Amino acid sequence: MDRIVRVNMSDLTTRVEPVPAAWVGLGGRALTSTVVAAEVPPTCHALGPNNKLVFAPGLLSGTAAANSGRISCGAKSPLTGGIKESNAGGTAAKMLAKLGIAALVVEGQPAADKWYSVHVAKDAITIQEEKDTVGTGNYCLVNQVQARFGKPVGVMSVGPAGEMKMLSANISVADPESHIRSIGRGGLGAVMGSKKLKFISIDDTGTPPVMPKEPAKFKEAAKIFAQTLLDHPVSGQGLPTYGTNVLVNILHEAGGLPTRNFTSGQYAAHDKISGETMHATIVARGGMPTHGCHPGCQIQCSQIYNDKDGKYLTSGFEYETIWGMGADCCIEDLDDIATADHVMDDIGVDSIETAVMFGVAMEAGVLPFGDGKGVVRMLTEEIGKGTPLGRILGGGAANVGRVYGITRVPVVKNQGIPAYDPRAVKGIGVTYAMSTMGADHTSGYAVATNILSVGGHVDPLKKEGQIELARNLNIATAAIDSTGMCLFIAFPALDIPACLTSLIDMINARFGIALSGDDVTALGKSVLKTEHAFNIAAGLTREHDRLPEFFSLEALPPHNVVWDITPEELDSYWNF
Amino acid sequence: MDRIVRVNMSDLTTRVEPVPAAWVGLGGRALTSTVVAAEVPPTCHALGPNNKLVFAPGLLSGTAAANSGRISCGAKSPLTGGIKESNAGGTAAKMLAKLGIAALVVEGQPAADKWYSVHVAKDAITIQEEKDTVGTGNYCLVNQVQARFGKPVGVMSVGPAGEMKMLSANISVADPESHIRSIGRGGLGAVMGSKKLKFISIDDTGTPPVMPKEPAKFKEAAKIFAQTLLDHPVSGQGLPTYGTNVLVNILHEAGGLPTRNFTSGQYAAHDKISGETMHATIVARGGMPTHGCHPGCQIQCSQIYNDKDGKYLTSGFEYETIWGMGADCCIEDLDDIATADHVMDDIGVDSIETAVMFGVAMEAGVLPFGDGKGVVRMLTEEIGKGTPLGRILGGGAANVGRVYGITRVPVVKNQGIPAYDPRAVKGIGVTYAMSTMGADHTSGYAVATNILSVGGHVDPLKKEGQIELARNLNIATAAIDSTGMCLFIAFPALDIPACLTSLIDMINARFGIALSGDDVTALGKSVLKTEHAFNIAAGLTREHDRLPEFFSLEALPPHNVVWDITPEELDSYWNF
Repeated sequence: MDRIVRVNMSDLTTRVEPVPAAWVGLGGRALTSTVVAAEVPPTCHALGPNNKLVFAPGLLSGTAAANSGRISCGAKSPLTGGIKESNAGGTAAKMLAKLGIAALVVEGQPAADKWYSVHVAKDAITIQEEKDTVGTGNYCLVNQVQARFGKPVGVMSVGPAGEMKMLSANISVADPESHIRSIGRGGLGAVMGSKKLKFISIDDTGTPPVMPKEPAKFKEAAKIFAQTLLDHPVSGQGLPTYGTNVLVNILHEAGGLPTRNFTSGQYAAHDKISGETMHATIVARGGMPTHGCHPGCQIQCSQIYNDKDGKYLTSGFEYETIWGMGADCCIEDLDDIATADHVMDDIGVDSIETAVMFGVAMEAGVLPFGDGKGVVRMLTEEIGKGTPLGRILGGGAANVGRVYGITRVPVVKNQGIPAYDPRAVKGIGVTYAMSTMGADHTSGYAVATNILSVGGHVDPLKKEGQIELARNLNIATAAIDSTGMCLFIAFPALDIPACLTSLIDMINARFGIALSGDDVTALGKSVLKTEHAFNIAAGLTREHDRLPEFFSLEALPPHNVVWDITPEELDSYWNF
Repeated sequence: MDRIVRVNMSDLTTRVEPVPAAWVGLGGRALTSTVVAAEVPPTCHALGPNNKLVFAPGLLSGTAAANSGRISCGAKSPLTGGIKESNAGGTAAKMLAKLGIAALVVEGQPAADKWYSVHVAKDAITIQEEKDTVGTGNYCLVNQVQARFGKPVGVMSVGPAGEMKMLSANISVADPESHIRSIGRGGLGAVMGSKKLKFISIDDTGTPPVMPKEPAKFKEAAKIFAQTLLDHPVSGQGLPTYGTNVLVNILHEAGGLPTRNFTSGQYAAHDKISGETMHATIVARGGMPTHGCHPGCQIQCSQIYNDKDGKYLTSGFEYETIWGMGADCCIEDLDDIATADHVMDDIGVDSIETAVMFGVAMEAGVLPFGDGKGVVRMLTEEIGKGTPLGRILGGGAANVGRVYGITRVPVVKNQGIPAYDPRAVKGIGVTYAMSTMGADHTSGYAVATNILSVGGHVDPLKKEGQIELARNLNIATAAIDSTGMCLFIAFPALDIPACLTSLIDMINARFGIALSGDDVTALGKSVLKTEHAFNIAAGLTREHDRLPEFFSLEALPPHNVVWDITPEELDSYWNF
């Protein structure tokens, strides 16, 4: 982990540098946010030559630590206008870590209208012009690239949406089965598209596994850590069995499942799209109900969902996607939602942004609520092809709201609000408002404590304690996002003391250092402050740390609650 | 001028109130901005029920003072996200002033999907449901409304663009010939559309002219004032002869005429669209080369432009429109531009925003540069009909930039930059950056001093003196905008001392007060500070007081100048 690789798309050169002293000991989000804050002018155009796209494996990526294979990606977001980190599974993090690459920094943009790929291997970083792969969807592209190299290389790519610089465009990361995981949020695919970079391929041939400085200590800690993942009911049972979609029924029961573009907290047809129904369907069709998104995953919350004929339809079929297309767009047919998920992965758009967007588009009358076939058609024929309507929809929820003059637009900092209504799950509402990333449940998953009673319990309907809850979770998450760990380790980390201590022990053994729990908290705080400072310099203010007005004006059934955490209370979030 | 009329569109009631003590002595922009700042929550959704639309005649409107017939309109802008005042000629200001109405405040919005009109007359303010007029263009609508009342009432209306809440939608104001003037900028038509208010009709039957408190003093001052308008070469000769379009050749010569989406400062075909060519064409076709946009106008910079067959095509055919469609979109045919102007007035979109938008759309490849017929077709068939492409284009320049991932997007605070390149006319660049209104040449017309040597001379290519110039002009303009005066009185006001003193004498005689020149400056400062405070509370920051990045990265031919006024220098603008 001792090299920074720089790829300059303006002059098509590459450069390998040692990690500067100031960045030593940083990984994942801590490193991407540090590089972006240090090198990207906050007021630059996010799609212009001065933005940089930074990929970084986590501190533990490439080791034998369970669930350490997340790849972080950072840049100035063209969607939020602030700093962005988004991370995904797949094989890229492990491969980059094995190649000793702490960060891959893509800079500049070509003057000519030509497309390129970057290949990263043990002995060389090369840039090549791309012709045949341009316009290709991600599923096909991954196969093309692996056929070109004759082996399963790592692939990070943009689909047609990223090529068209749509603000909902994501970056795809191939998983061990050459299926698609997504660096989903904030339009990072548009940044990659603006640099005319169709894909990055990674070949770790000839590199050994990452060896910890203190192998015995590491092995012992890794064992304890892995056991805590198995011991916790959420990471050990709920997620492996039903995937993240276990949450549909839970949120419906709690009255916090945003339905019909955030006009109700319960969805009458919740049974048709629930994790339980999905599990039974997968099993009946010969799919895989449990599956890991990256090598070394032990939680296995992913799955392979087959169609009625038993053929592969999609994987990484997450609660937030199913909630968004299901409850929020009132689409009852899980196969329609799975088809939409496949198409979104293929054209390369964030499924949360896109699902929230369709809820707004349905309110605008672009298509009827419940029209699953219409959604699939619009994904394929409009967004995927960049028609004028597709351009509107590909711009995300806020864009559709602006273009059609809609006021019920669930976004913060222009980014779509995910699957938990902030009026009925107030802790996550604080995270949506205050996250440096725009509305993002993964920034500080207060749903755990509000709804799942993990890490204690804070009443989701009352405002007491929510600021503190969200603040602590956002700090902890910023630290976890720096390790390369999957966020779902937070469930055992919140309830089982040995989880966090063994995680720190692994980091210490990996680098031969002696971090304490306080050091990790300090890292999380430092990451948030770096990101917040960037956002302020980019022109985001406390007025952007707010939920949309309609959450305060419209009471959410069945609890008939409004958003009532005051601006002053929200601003106290930053008191640390 | 002693009444505030409130129209509540939520419960369809009206209320007449005396002017509160705090608002006495305010008119035009001073009053609209004060009401908006006092009553509109800065973070509300601009198209939601908490925004208010405020119409106010100026302090001198309705009197015999020359050029005092501008109507101001204010609200939170859905385009800029900040406060907005935009003003126009036409008959409405005079009529409202004669009816003793200091401001008409439209509040709330109907729950039902029904459209309404408001009729203002001497004895009653009434709200009526509208059916047949909905969907109608402004030209036809004005005739319909006047036919309904059997006399030439004042009309302020939205066209289809305003009904669709497009961010480029303006509010039309009928002129004495029932042609169209426009409250153009900032999407105020979308705010009117969000309140489902198709039009306001005004009948001043039975009201006497506004009588000054001291008639003799007023008459004497008005005579001096009118003479200064005649005596100044710009207001007395240039504008009456060639209209505002006299500027095409002047800006071309100066190298500050933004061409081909702001990639050059000179337009090879400038002769084909110049004021001189236009004047000759109007005369040859039996049009009117000089014409007043409101009763009492003495400058007469408007005109009636006929088509090849001598039939009325458009009026109020301004430099900024002709520059935008002409040089910036490279359309050489003045008849195409005039046709576009007519259609823009009819469907109700801001011609500056729309012309700048087409320059960006041409860069995005939506249509070729120079395609005048294409522009007219897209205005009529796409924007006017609200097709998906029309929705994109109707969202304005920034929206097209976002949707197509374009980085050369000339906007400030989302509002299109008008007809003077800030790199070659740096004083107006400061106004664009710092105006509380977003990019707006009328906020502080530094072109006067940079290019026309009115009010002295400040070298347009150097940055020295530009901040002070723009600041002083913005302060003066905020005061002038409060009087109901046409901004073009600024030319004599800058060069002929008697102009400003007689203007103040008129205000004093009108109200029986004793304002000094310092009082007027203080009013201008106070208006700017009120607006700036609203913008800050709405979430706009110093980072929004900046020009787009490309002006600093790309040198503008022929002078090969970049924008080089630093952020710190810009921020010193607010040191007053």
